[in-house]
Amino acid sequence: MASQKSLNDLTLNFLRDIYYAERQILKALPKMAKAAENDQLKQAFQQHREETEHQVERLQQVFERLGTRARGQTCEAINGIIEEGEEIVGEFDKGPVLDAALAANAQAVEHYEMARYGALVAWAKVAGQNEIASLLEQTLAEEKKADTLLNELANKDLNKKAAVKQAA
Amino acid sequence: MASQKSLNDLTLNFLRDIYYAERQILKALPKMAKAAENDQLKQAFQQHREETEHQVERLQQVFERLGTRARGQTCEAINGIIEEGEEIVGEFDKGPVLDAALAANAQAVEHYEMARYGALVAWAKVAGQNEIASLLEQTLAEEKKADTLLNELANKDLNKKAAVKQAA
Repeated sequence: MASQKSLNDLTLNFLRDIYYAERQILKALPKMAKAAENDQLKQAFQQHREETEHQVERLQQVFERLGTRARGQTCEAINGIIEEGEEIVGEFDKGPVLDAALAANAQAVEHYEMARYGALVAWAKVAGQNEIASLLEQTLAEEKKADTLLNELANKDLNKKAAVKQAA
Repeated sequence: MASQKSLNDLTLNFLRDIYYAERQILKALPKMAKAAENDQLKQAFQQHREETEHQVERLQQVFERLGTRARGQTCEAINGIIEEGEEIVGEFDKGPVLDAALAANAQAVEHYEMARYGALVAWAKVAGQNEIASLLEQTLAEEKKADTLLNELANKDLNKKAAVKQAA
């Protein structure tokens, strides 16, 4: 019955979406690290893979607190972002331009997660689920930090090298 | 030849992606406005539709400045985000919980665009394409503003009403 669906149902919907997404990201990050030429970018992807493992565990804790089994549901958005990244890896050779693309694509992943976790944190708070809010806030902070790091890498180094290649 | 692909090719790739995305968003926004119960949310979607029309025009100007025809290429990411929104509209009745979902989904759209335009602005700047950077920065600012507005609406009003419905 659609009319009986509550904020809790919506929260579960978003949790399953992001749980699926995190596990796809876990699989994509090593491929992105492999495709990267720049050492700092490679390292950023490897580090974020470790963080993502903890984020998956946190989601499992959230499902547990809600008294339900952790399960994912296909998230076409993350599949689309990852697919776009893979297409670019297929089209561009390893090097500065691909590095700029990989960083930008990873930022799209982070932004998707920021939007989803942002909503989940807000909903946990209005529902008075403070421990759940706190768990998800830790992840949200990590995603924002990962996005900032990628932005700094891109602006300080990657994009200039990609432009130099163009001018050469 | 993959090895000859430049930052300019990457920029065109992202431009075609976001050009397709903007036109999908243009089609999705009236449906989102129709699905919304809250007047301010409905209005936010309607206003953003008008903004999106200008954003499409700006992209056409950017293609023109780059000496190439404006064309889109399928963006699976935006298709996925929009599809997720449509599924929720199908699952939840009109009302406070659906409004909270619609706002959150629109924020995922904005975040995707912020990531894409953020990269495009940075690349135009390092390539010395200042007029293109300026056009895309206008759009980036609008996307950020739209995201902030949705966030305010959600936090001040929508989420609380969605939670009250749950408690009722």
